[in-house]
Amino acid sequence: MQTIRVATPSARYDVLTGSGLLESLAPRIEKAAGRLPRRIFVLTSPEIWSLWAETFLHSFLELKIDPPVALFLPPGEPHKTMASAERLTREMIRAGGDRSSLLIAFGGGIVGDVGGFAASVFMRGIPYVQVPTTFLAQVDSSVGGKVGVNLPEGKNLVGSFHQPRAVFADIGVLGTLSDRELRAGLMESIKAGIIRDRGLLRFMEEQAEAILDRDPKALERVIAASIRMKADVVSRDERESGLRMILNFGHTVGHALEQVTRYKAMLHGEAIAWGMVAALSLGRARGTLTAGQLDRLETLIYLYGPLPALKLRARAIVAATASDKKNTGGVRRFVLPLGIGNAGVVEDVTPSELEAAVNYMLDKAKAG
Amino acid sequence: MQTIRVATPSARYDVLTGSGLLESLAPRIEKAAGRLPRRIFVLTSPEIWSLWAETFLHSFLELKIDPPVALFLPPGEPHKTMASAERLTREMIRAGGDRSSLLIAFGGGIVGDVGGFAASVFMRGIPYVQVPTTFLAQVDSSVGGKVGVNLPEGKNLVGSFHQPRAVFADIGVLGTLSDRELRAGLMESIKAGIIRDRGLLRFMEEQAEAILDRDPKALERVIAASIRMKADVVSRDERESGLRMILNFGHTVGHALEQVTRYKAMLHGEAIAWGMVAALSLGRARGTLTAGQLDRLETLIYLYGPLPALKLRARAIVAATASDKKNTGGVRRFVLPLGIGNAGVVEDVTPSELEAAVNYMLDKAKAG
Repeated sequence: MQTIRVATPSARYDVLTGSGLLESLAPRIEKAAGRLPRRIFVLTSPEIWSLWAETFLHSFLELKIDPPVALFLPPGEPHKTMASAERLTREMIRAGGDRSSLLIAFGGGIVGDVGGFAASVFMRGIPYVQVPTTFLAQVDSSVGGKVGVNLPEGKNLVGSFHQPRAVFADIGVLGTLSDRELRAGLMESIKAGIIRDRGLLRFMEEQAEAILDRDPKALERVIAASIRMKADVVSRDERESGLRMILNFGHTVGHALEQVTRYKAMLHGEAIAWGMVAALSLGRARGTLTAGQLDRLETLIYLYGPLPALKLRARAIVAATASDKKNTGGVRRFVLPLGIGNAGVVEDVTPSELEAAVNYMLDKAKAG
Repeated sequence: MQTIRVATPSARYDVLTGSGLLESLAPRIEKAAGRLPRRIFVLTSPEIWSLWAETFLHSFLELKIDPPVALFLPPGEPHKTMASAERLTREMIRAGGDRSSLLIAFGGGIVGDVGGFAASVFMRGIPYVQVPTTFLAQVDSSVGGKVGVNLPEGKNLVGSFHQPRAVFADIGVLGTLSDRELRAGLMESIKAGIIRDRGLLRFMEEQAEAILDRDPKALERVIAASIRMKADVVSRDERESGLRMILNFGHTVGHALEQVTRYKAMLHGEAIAWGMVAALSLGRARGTLTAGQLDRLETLIYLYGPLPALKLRARAIVAATASDKKNTGGVRRFVLPLGIGNAGVVEDVTPSELEAAVNYMLDKAKAG
């Protein structure tokens, strides 16, 4: 078990990762959030709940308090909407929720994002706790307080900064994850290594087999290091006014890929993996990476593949980057790798540079 | 012109009240919020815009910047919804809004609440400025950062605390307000006096004629004092964990009246006026007000009437108070007058005490 502290101007909380957290959730939440309120809600997906409800509820029943009221979100981006958030707040009211209520988001990234957003606006904000069940949610979206929903015009365009009271990343629940989901999630750990943690990179190079075999110790090491990186960045820049933007490494082109394929062709981590390849190539073109570094990092990305083949036009992808949320006042921002374990934000990337990087990526992605 | 400072843990800003603010808005906003962004939005109602667009836009055109993009909200509570907030954020995206954009809420309380809420969640929060056009919005809802929308289950159940960068309460725009709206709005000023400002109460007793005749000096005095009271309370308790609850004086029964009449029978200020009569009677019953004080305060309320007659059952009103947002964990909170210029929150009001107070009010309200 590892405990990682997040300390932002608006909140301090712990992220716990390890095995057996789910079995002891109630006393742990009580310790983190104070006396448990009369009404607790758990937002989850039907799949997760059918697998884990009994384990989840066990520690609440032991405390002899009313068990959490379960609310459901069907899986998939189409449900990450304002309409879902509104439905959840209405259900919370009707089930006796008030300002003292607590919400537990128990599921993948979408459950965490929608649940956190509903908590941030219900009665102008109630506390919530993240219990992420996918690798991706454990190492990325559950930490840092960014919550929100999509608009038809783009992803995460509506939301809040609302820090959880605690995050419990139980490695035990990852057992039901498919190999493809695990591999996609590990791309965010590779990202963590590239932008800020050489030691994590080396570990992922050397222990790929153990990690992909889901050895608990190896997974805990990767998850804890990824969370530690994110917690450190978020603690220094909660509102993404500077440093936090480096977390978007690989995301400019990655989001564009998701957008032009309408979020149907690949998993988020897979899109980010290709986006990282494009960003690395841009770093090589600008001389912030050596040929050897580019080769080493690309090799690592493919080691955690396979990645989906792409049959897209570079122009369409470059055009889709224009609506990136990082852009403000007409300025395009791009996260550039600076050697290994470092990254920075630049604002002078030209469309033709971007197109060259995307073409490099598309060339690699022909083979799939 | 008067300037009142609000200083909360999350923000510091000025509320300006006086005449001629609308004509000089652009440089004033620039002074308060920093360099004006490429894209500014103004949320308003069709009525307000048809009356004031030219005056409003004048100072922006003088600065030779792109004029604000106008967004519209039809009048009335039925439009104070999540769906409206979503529509506005979508329109902002399509009109080129980004994280650096600024929103100006130019209208009554609903425009301010919905506009502030949209600003609080658009791209996880952009700055906004309040330019309230009704008396009620000027003295109450535009100050303090409470923004939000309704659910079918109740008012303001979804929202945020999001402080504006500045509030400009221009007395000049009140000219188009109906007498009934002005009188209803003045009830919030009476509330301000009862809970915290004896001087304001005395002024409203002595200068009722000038105030109701809309003498600019008299109005400015009342508005500034009301805002000062609210700014002071909000600065001490931004998130309504204690003191700020006294602002809900008269609102427990007032909200219940609005609820049982489905927000159609009376203006908010009128409901609050009757709610204050009930709360005063409860204070008298508990001995926190003398008979003379009750008489004096009721007389003042009726002086700013007429109030609508009520033909309702006490039971229904008492039942409707159960869903008050102030209640948490089953505890009912009630704001009790403590003499003149003081109030406190109690948690031990019984249903029968409440019913007696409501019956007192209904008795007074028979005559209308």
